[in-house]
Amino acid sequence: MRLYSMPSSGNSYKVRLLLALLDCDCEMIDVEYGSTALEAAQRDGRLPFGKAPVLELPGGRLLPESNAILCWLGEGTRFWPADAVARAEMLSWMFWEQNQHEGVIAVRAALACYPHRAADATPERMAALLEAGHRLLGLMDAHLAGRDWLVGDAVSLADICLYAYTHTAGSRGGFEMGRFPAVTAWLSRVAALPGYVGLDG
Amino acid sequence: MRLYSMPSSGNSYKVRLLLALLDCDCEMIDVEYGSTALEAAQRDGRLPFGKAPVLELPGGRLLPESNAILCWLGEGTRFWPADAVARAEMLSWMFWEQNQHEGVIAVRAALACYPHRAADATPERMAALLEAGHRLLGLMDAHLAGRDWLVGDAVSLADICLYAYTHTAGSRGGFEMGRFPAVTAWLSRVAALPGYVGLDG
Repeated sequence: MRLYSMPSSGNSYKVRLLLALLDCDCEMIDVEYGSTALEAAQRDGRLPFGKAPVLELPGGRLLPESNAILCWLGEGTRFWPADAVARAEMLSWMFWEQNQHEGVIAVRAALACYPHRAADATPERMAALLEAGHRLLGLMDAHLAGRDWLVGDAVSLADICLYAYTHTAGSRGGFEMGRFPAVTAWLSRVAALPGYVGLDG
Repeated sequence: MRLYSMPSSGNSYKVRLLLALLDCDCEMIDVEYGSTALEAAQRDGRLPFGKAPVLELPGGRLLPESNAILCWLGEGTRFWPADAVARAEMLSWMFWEQNQHEGVIAVRAALACYPHRAADATPERMAALLEAGHRLLGLMDAHLAGRDWLVGDAVSLADICLYAYTHTAGSRGGFEMGRFPAVTAWLSRVAALPGYVGLDG
Protein backbone atom coordinates (compact mmCIF):
# COMPACT_ATOMS: atom_id res chain seq x y z
CA MET A 1 0.00 0.00 0.00
CA ARG A 2 1.00 3.60 -0.55
CA LEU A 3 -0.33 6.63 1.33
CA TYR A 4 -0.39 10.10 -0.19
CA SER A 5 -0.04 12.01 3.06
CA MET A 6 0.18 15.73 3.89
CA PRO A 7 2.58 15.88 6.87
CA SER A 8 0.99 18.98 8.48
CA SER A 9 -2.63 17.81 8.12
CA GLY A 10 -4.67 16.12 10.83
CA ASN A 11 -6.66 14.17 8.24
CA SER A 12 -3.45 12.55 6.96
CA TYR A 13 -2.15 12.10 10.52
CA LYS A 14 -5.23 10.04 11.49
CA VAL A 15 -4.26 7.45 8.91
CA ARG A 16 -0.57 7.45 9.87
CA LEU A 17 -1.58 7.00 13.53
CA LEU A 18 -3.83 4.02 12.78
CA LEU A 19 -1.14 2.43 10.57
CA ALA A 20 1.33 2.78 13.48
CA LEU A 21 -1.12 1.37 16.05
CA LEU A 22 -1.78 -1.59 13.74
CA ASP A 23 1.98 -1.96 13.02
CA CYS A 24 1.08 -1.94 9.32
CA ASP A 25 3.65 -1.34 6.57
CA CYS A 26 2.80 1.39 4.08
CA GLU A 27 4.92 3.48 1.71
CA MET A 28 4.54 7.21 2.40
CA ILE A 29 4.42 9.84 -0.34
CA ASP A 30 4.60 13.25 1.34
CA VAL A 31 2.48 15.85 -0.45
CA GLU A 32 2.82 19.02 1.66
CA TYR A 33 1.07 22.29 0.74
CA GLY A 34 2.93 24.05 -2.04
CA SER A 35 5.23 21.10 -2.78
CA THR A 36 6.05 19.84 -6.25
CA ALA A 37 5.05 16.35 -4.99
CA LEU A 38 1.51 17.63 -4.33
CA GLU A 39 1.36 19.24 -7.79
CA ALA A 40 2.59 16.01 -9.37
CA ALA A 41 0.04 13.88 -7.48
CA GLN A 42 -2.79 16.21 -8.54
CA ARG A 43 -1.60 16.35 -12.15
CA ASP A 44 -1.25 12.56 -12.35
CA GLY A 45 -4.79 11.95 -11.02
CA ARG A 46 -3.63 10.34 -7.74
CA LEU A 47 -6.04 12.45 -5.60
CA PRO A 48 -9.60 11.62 -6.80
CA PHE A 49 -11.24 14.37 -4.72
CA GLY A 50 -8.30 16.76 -5.08
CA LYS A 51 -6.99 16.31 -1.52
CA ALA A 52 -4.76 14.13 0.66
CA PRO A 53 -4.87 11.64 2.24
CA VAL A 54 -5.41 9.02 -0.45
CA LEU A 55 -4.58 5.34 0.06
CA GLU A 56 -3.41 3.44 -3.00
CA LEU A 57 -4.55 -0.14 -2.48
CA PRO A 58 -2.66 -3.22 -3.63
CA GLY A 59 -3.73 -3.45 -7.28
CA GLY A 60 -3.74 0.32 -7.74
CA ARG A 61 -7.24 1.49 -6.75
CA LEU A 62 -7.23 4.91 -5.08
CA LEU A 63 -9.24 5.44 -1.88
CA PRO A 64 -9.76 9.07 -0.80
CA GLU A 65 -11.24 10.51 2.44
CA SER A 66 -9.42 9.97 5.72
CA ASN A 67 -12.34 8.38 7.56
CA ALA A 68 -13.12 5.95 4.74
CA ILE A 69 -9.44 4.93 4.82
CA LEU A 70 -9.70 4.39 8.59
CA CYS A 71 -12.70 2.09 7.99
CA TRP A 72 -10.88 0.18 5.26
CA LEU A 73 -7.79 -0.35 7.43
CA GLY A 74 -9.68 -0.85 10.69
CA GLU A 75 -12.48 -3.24 9.75
CA GLY A 76 -12.01 -6.49 11.64
CA THR A 77 -9.31 -5.11 13.98
CA ARG A 78 -9.70 -4.19 17.67
CA PHE A 79 -10.64 -0.65 16.54
CA TRP A 80 -13.84 -2.00 14.90
CA PRO A 81 -16.66 -2.73 17.39
CA ALA A 82 -18.22 -6.18 17.13
CA ASP A 83 -21.60 -4.80 18.21
CA ALA A 84 -23.70 -3.35 15.36
CA VAL A 85 -25.09 -0.45 17.42
CA ALA A 86 -21.58 0.46 18.60
CA ARG A 87 -20.38 0.39 14.97
CA ALA A 88 -23.18 2.77 14.03
CA GLU A 89 -22.32 5.07 16.95
CA MET A 90 -18.67 5.03 15.85
CA LEU A 91 -19.75 6.18 12.38
CA SER A 92 -21.95 8.90 13.94
CA TRP A 93 -18.87 10.43 15.60
CA MET A 94 -16.84 10.08 12.40
CA PHE A 95 -19.45 11.80 10.23
CA TRP A 96 -19.88 14.49 12.92
CA GLU A 97 -16.12 15.02 12.84
CA GLN A 98 -16.15 15.69 9.10
CA ASN A 99 -19.35 17.74 9.08
CA GLN A 100 -19.01 19.81 12.29
CA HIS A 101 -15.70 19.42 14.15
CA GLU A 102 -13.19 19.71 11.29
CA GLY A 103 -14.80 22.82 9.81
CA VAL A 104 -14.31 24.64 13.11
CA ILE A 105 -11.43 23.07 15.09
CA ALA A 106 -9.15 22.37 12.11
CA VAL A 107 -10.13 25.49 10.20
CA ARG A 108 -9.31 27.84 13.09
CA ALA A 109 -5.91 26.16 13.45
CA ALA A 110 -5.28 26.47 9.70
CA LEU A 111 -6.24 30.15 9.70
CA ALA A 112 -3.92 30.76 12.66
CA CYS A 113 -0.94 28.74 11.37
CA TYR A 114 -0.80 28.72 7.55
CA PRO A 115 0.54 31.98 6.03
CA HIS A 116 -1.53 31.46 2.85
CA ARG A 117 -4.73 31.46 4.96
CA ALA A 118 -3.90 34.56 7.04
CA ALA A 119 -6.02 36.91 4.91
CA ASP A 120 -9.15 34.95 5.90
CA ALA A 121 -8.38 35.14 9.64
CA THR A 122 -10.46 38.23 10.39
CA PRO A 123 -11.09 38.98 14.10
CA GLU A 124 -14.82 38.37 13.63
CA ARG A 125 -14.26 34.97 12.01
CA MET A 126 -11.68 33.88 14.59
CA ALA A 127 -14.01 34.88 17.44
CA ALA A 128 -16.95 33.01 15.91
CA LEU A 129 -14.80 29.90 15.39
CA LEU A 130 -13.53 30.11 18.98
CA GLU A 131 -17.06 30.17 20.35
CA ALA A 132 -18.25 27.39 18.03
CA GLY A 133 -15.21 25.26 18.87
CA HIS A 134 -15.73 25.62 22.59
CA ARG A 135 -19.32 24.43 22.08
CA LEU A 136 -18.12 21.34 20.14
CA LEU A 137 -15.38 20.56 22.67
CA GLY A 138 -17.98 20.97 25.43
CA LEU A 139 -20.19 18.39 23.73
CA MET A 140 -17.25 15.95 23.61
CA ASP A 141 -16.37 16.74 27.23
CA ALA A 142 -19.90 16.07 28.47
CA HIS A 143 -19.97 12.77 26.58
CA LEU A 144 -16.52 11.66 27.82
CA ALA A 145 -17.18 12.53 31.47
CA GLY A 146 -17.26 9.18 33.25
CA ARG A 147 -16.17 7.11 30.26
CA ASP A 148 -12.79 6.22 28.75
CA TRP A 149 -13.63 6.11 25.03
CA LEU A 150 -16.15 7.72 22.70
CA VAL A 151 -18.04 4.48 21.93
CA GLY A 152 -18.77 1.60 24.31
CA ASP A 153 -15.93 0.63 26.62
CA ALA A 154 -13.08 0.16 24.15
CA VAL A 155 -10.98 2.30 21.83
CA SER A 156 -12.40 2.49 18.29
CA LEU A 157 -11.82 4.33 15.03
CA ALA A 158 -13.93 7.18 16.44
CA ASP A 159 -11.19 7.93 18.98
CA ILE A 160 -8.43 7.88 16.34
CA CYS A 161 -10.54 10.09 14.09
CA LEU A 162 -11.41 12.72 16.70
CA TYR A 163 -7.96 12.68 18.31
CA ALA A 164 -6.24 14.06 15.21
CA TYR A 165 -7.49 17.64 15.25
CA THR A 166 -8.51 17.73 18.93
CA HIS A 167 -4.99 17.10 20.27
CA THR A 168 -3.71 20.26 18.58
CA ALA A 169 -6.82 22.36 19.26
CA GLY A 170 -5.03 24.22 22.06
CA SER A 171 -1.54 24.58 20.58
CA ARG A 172 -2.58 25.36 17.01
CA GLY A 173 -6.17 26.50 17.27
CA GLY A 174 -6.00 28.60 20.44
CA PHE A 175 -8.90 26.80 22.13
CA GLU A 176 -8.94 26.82 25.95
CA MET A 177 -8.43 23.12 26.65
CA GLY A 178 -8.30 23.63 30.41
CA ARG A 179 -12.08 23.98 30.27
CA PHE A 180 -12.44 20.38 29.03
CA PRO A 181 -10.87 17.99 31.57
CA ALA A 182 -12.59 14.85 30.27
CA VAL A 183 -11.33 15.60 26.74
CA THR A 184 -7.82 16.20 28.12
CA ALA A 185 -7.82 12.87 29.99
CA TRP A 186 -9.09 11.07 26.88
CA LEU A 187 -6.31 12.64 24.75
CA SER A 188 -3.79 11.19 27.24
CA ARG A 189 -5.38 7.75 26.94
CA VAL A 190 -5.02 7.81 23.14
CA ALA A 191 -1.39 9.00 23.41
CA ALA A 192 -0.65 6.06 25.76
CA LEU A 193 -1.79 3.39 23.27
CA PRO A 194 1.01 0.94 22.33
CA GLY A 195 2.55 1.94 19.01
CA TYR A 196 1.35 5.56 19.23
CA VAL A 197 3.14 8.11 17.05
CA GLY A 198 2.78 11.89 17.25
CA LEU A 199 1.90 14.25 14.41
CA ASP A 200 5.58 14.87 13.68
CA GLY A 201 6.90 11.40 14.51
CA MET B 1 -38.03 2.71 15.47
CA ARG B 2 -38.74 6.43 15.52
CA LEU B 3 -37.14 9.06 13.28
CA TYR B 4 -36.77 12.68 14.36
CA SER B 5 -36.97 14.17 10.88
CA MET B 6 -36.85 17.76 9.58
CA PRO B 7 -39.23 17.74 6.60
CA SER B 8 -37.40 20.45 4.61
CA SER B 9 -33.88 19.01 5.15
CA GLY B 10 -32.02 16.83 2.69
CA ASN B 11 -30.20 15.05 5.51
CA SER B 12 -33.53 13.90 6.96
CA TYR B 13 -34.90 13.11 3.48
CA LYS B 14 -32.02 10.68 2.81
CA VAL B 15 -33.20 8.53 5.69
CA ARG B 16 -36.88 8.75 4.71
CA LEU B 17 -35.93 7.75 1.14
CA LEU B 18 -33.95 4.70 2.29
CA LEU B 19 -36.75 3.65 4.66
CA ALA B 20 -39.20 3.84 1.73
CA LEU B 21 -36.89 1.91 -0.63
CA LEU B 22 -36.49 -0.79 2.06
CA ASP B 23 -40.25 -0.72 2.79
CA CYS B 24 -39.35 -0.32 6.45
CA ASP B 25 -41.84 0.87 9.09
CA CYS B 26 -40.75 3.81 11.23
CA GLU B 27 -42.66 6.36 13.29
CA MET B 28 -41.95 9.93 12.12
CA ILE B 29 -41.57 12.87 14.51
CA ASP B 30 -41.47 16.03 12.40
CA VAL B 31 -39.11 18.64 13.85
CA GLU B 32 -39.19 21.53 11.35
CA TYR B 33 -37.14 24.73 11.85
CA GLY B 34 -38.81 26.98 14.38
CA SER B 35 -41.37 24.37 15.47
CA THR B 36 -42.28 23.64 19.07
CA ALA B 37 -41.61 19.95 18.27
CA LEU B 38 -37.96 20.82 17.47
CA GLU B 39 -37.64 22.83 20.69
CA ALA B 40 -39.15 19.96 22.68
CA ALA B 41 -36.82 17.38 21.09
CA GLN B 42 -33.79 19.57 21.86
CA ARG B 43 -34.94 20.28 25.42
CA ASP B 44 -35.61 16.57 26.09
CA GLY B 45 -32.16 15.50 24.85
CA ARG B 46 -33.47 13.58 21.83
CA LEU B 47 -30.90 15.18 19.44
CA PRO B 48 -27.43 14.20 20.76
CA PHE B 49 -25.54 16.49 18.35
CA GLY B 50 -28.26 19.16 18.39
CA LYS B 51 -29.64 18.39 14.92
CA ALA B 52 -32.05 16.16 13.02
CA PRO B 53 -32.17 13.49 11.78
CA VAL B 54 -31.86 11.18 14.77
CA LEU B 55 -33.02 7.57 14.73
CA GLU B 56 -34.35 6.18 18.00
CA LEU B 57 -33.52 2.48 17.96
CA PRO B 58 -35.67 -0.25 19.49
CA GLY B 59 -34.61 -0.10 23.15
CA GLY B 60 -34.24 3.68 23.12
CA ARG B 61 -30.67 4.39 21.99
CA LEU B 62 -30.39 7.56 19.89
CA LEU B 63 -28.37 7.48 16.67
CA PRO B 64 -27.52 10.90 15.13
CA GLU B 65 -25.94 11.77 11.76
CA SER B 66 -27.82 10.98 8.56
CA ASN B 67 -25.06 8.91 6.96
CA ALA B 68 -24.48 6.80 10.07
CA ILE B 69 -28.25 6.11 10.09
CA LEU B 70 -28.05 5.08 6.42
CA CYS B 71 -25.26 2.61 7.33
CA TRP B 72 -27.24 1.24 10.28
CA LEU B 73 -30.36 0.71 8.17
CA GLY B 74 -28.55 -0.36 5.02
CA GLU B 75 -25.95 -2.86 6.28
CA GLY B 76 -26.72 -6.26 4.81
CA THR B 77 -29.30 -4.98 2.30
CA ARG B 78 -28.86 -4.56 -1.47
CA PHE B 79 -27.60 -1.01 -0.81
CA TRP B 80 -24.52 -2.41 1.01
CA PRO B 81 -21.79 -3.71 -1.35
CA ALA B 82 -20.55 -7.23 -0.65
CA ASP B 83 -17.06 -6.31 -1.88
CA ALA B 84 -14.83 -4.69 0.77
CA VAL B 85 -13.20 -2.21 -1.63
CA ALA B 86 -16.61 -1.15 -2.92
CA ARG B 87 -17.80 -0.65 0.68
CA ALA B 88 -14.79 1.57 1.33
CA GLU B 89 -15.46 3.55 -1.87
CA MET B 90 -19.10 3.98 -0.79
CA LEU B 91 -17.90 5.47 2.50
CA SER B 92 -15.47 7.76 0.62
CA TRP B 93 -18.40 9.29 -1.24
CA MET B 94 -20.46 9.57 1.96
CA PHE B 95 -17.69 11.33 3.92
CA TRP B 96 -17.03 13.59 0.91
CA GLU B 97 -20.73 14.45 0.89
CA GLN B 98 -20.64 15.61 4.52
CA ASN B 99 -17.26 17.34 4.28
CA GLN B 100 -17.43 19.01 0.84
CA HIS B 101 -20.77 18.67 -0.96
CA GLU B 102 -23.25 19.55 1.81
CA GLY B 103 -21.35 22.67 2.88
CA VAL B 104 -21.70 24.09 -0.64
CA ILE B 105 -24.71 22.55 -2.41
CA ALA B 106 -27.02 22.43 0.63
CA VAL B 107 -25.77 25.68 2.12
CA ARG B 108 -26.39 27.71 -1.07
CA ALA B 109 -29.92 26.29 -1.22
CA ALA B 110 -30.52 27.13 2.45
CA LEU B 111 -29.25 30.69 1.99
CA ALA B 112 -31.52 31.11 -1.05
CA CYS B 113 -34.64 29.54 0.47
CA TYR B 114 -34.78 30.03 4.26
CA PRO B 115 -35.83 33.56 5.33
CA HIS B 116 -33.80 33.29 8.56
CA ARG B 117 -30.61 32.75 6.49
CA ALA B 118 -31.19 35.61 4.03
CA ALA B 119 -28.84 38.03 5.84
CA ASP B 120 -25.92 35.68 5.15
CA ALA B 121 -26.69 35.44 1.42
CA THR B 122 -24.34 38.22 0.28
CA PRO B 123 -23.68 38.42 -3.49
CA GLU B 124 -19.99 37.55 -2.92
CA ARG B 125 -20.83 34.44 -0.88
CA MET B 126 -23.52 33.27 -3.31
CA ALA B 127 -21.12 33.69 -6.26
CA ALA B 128 -18.34 31.78 -4.47
CA LEU B 129 -20.76 28.96 -3.57
CA LEU B 130 -22.03 28.81 -7.16
CA GLU B 131 -18.51 28.39 -8.51
CA ALA B 132 -17.55 25.83 -5.84
CA GLY B 133 -20.77 23.89 -6.41
CA HIS B 134 -20.25 23.71 -10.16
CA ARG B 135 -16.78 22.29 -9.48
CA LEU B 136 -18.24 19.60 -7.16
CA LEU B 137 -21.04 18.74 -9.59
CA GLY B 138 -18.43 18.57 -12.36
CA LEU B 139 -16.45 16.03 -10.32
CA MET B 140 -19.60 13.90 -9.91
CA ASP B 141 -20.43 14.29 -13.60
CA ALA B 142 -16.96 13.15 -14.73
CA HIS B 143 -17.19 10.13 -12.41
CA LEU B 144 -20.73 9.19 -13.53
CA ALA B 145 -20.00 9.52 -17.27
CA GLY B 146 -20.24 5.97 -18.60
CA ARG B 147 -21.48 4.41 -15.39
CA ASP B 148 -24.91 4.01 -13.80
CA TRP B 149 -24.08 4.32 -10.07
CA LEU B 150 -21.39 5.98 -7.96
CA VAL B 151 -19.83 2.72 -6.77
CA GLY B 152 -19.34 -0.50 -8.76
CA ASP B 153 -22.28 -1.51 -10.94
CA ALA B 154 -25.15 -1.39 -8.43
CA VAL B 155 -27.04 1.21 -6.42
CA SER B 156 -25.59 1.73 -2.92
CA LEU B 157 -25.98 4.01 0.08
CA ALA B 158 -23.62 6.44 -1.68
CA ASP B 159 -26.30 7.10 -4.32
CA ILE B 160 -29.05 7.64 -1.72
CA CYS B 161 -26.74 9.92 0.26
CA LEU B 162 -25.66 12.12 -2.68
CA TYR B 163 -29.10 12.18 -4.26
CA ALA B 164 -30.68 14.08 -1.39
CA TYR B 165 -29.11 17.51 -1.89
CA THR B 166 -28.11 17.03 -5.54
CA HIS B 167 -31.68 16.52 -6.80
CA THR B 168 -32.68 20.00 -5.55
CA ALA B 169 -29.39 21.70 -6.48
CA GLY B 170 -31.04 23.34 -9.51
CA SER B 171 -34.47 24.20 -8.11
CA ARG B 172 -33.34 25.33 -4.66
CA GLY B 173 -29.65 26.11 -5.04
CA GLY B 174 -29.66 27.80 -8.45
CA PHE B 175 -26.96 25.54 -9.90
CA GLU B 176 -26.94 25.07 -13.69
CA MET B 177 -27.77 21.36 -13.90
CA GLY B 178 -27.87 21.40 -17.71
CA ARG B 179 -24.08 21.43 -17.59
CA PHE B 180 -24.03 18.00 -15.90
CA PRO B 181 -25.82 15.45 -18.11
CA ALA B 182 -24.36 12.37 -16.39
CA VAL B 183 -25.55 13.68 -13.01
CA THR B 184 -29.00 14.40 -14.47
CA ALA B 185 -29.28 10.87 -15.90
CA TRP B 186 -28.16 9.38 -12.57
CA LEU B 187 -30.79 11.46 -10.69
CA SER B 188 -33.44 9.92 -12.98
CA ARG B 189 -32.17 6.42 -12.22
CA VAL B 190 -32.50 7.00 -8.47
CA ALA B 191 -36.00 8.45 -8.90
CA ALA B 192 -37.01 5.32 -10.86
CA LEU B 193 -36.10 2.91 -8.04
CA PRO B 194 -39.10 0.84 -6.82
CA GLY B 195 -40.51 2.40 -3.66
CA TYR B 196 -39.00 5.86 -4.33
CA VAL B 197 -40.55 8.82 -2.51
CA GLY B 198 -39.86 12.49 -3.20
CA LEU B 199 -38.77 15.10 -0.69
CA ASP B 200 -42.37 16.15 -0.06
CA GLY B 201 -43.99 12.74 -0.46
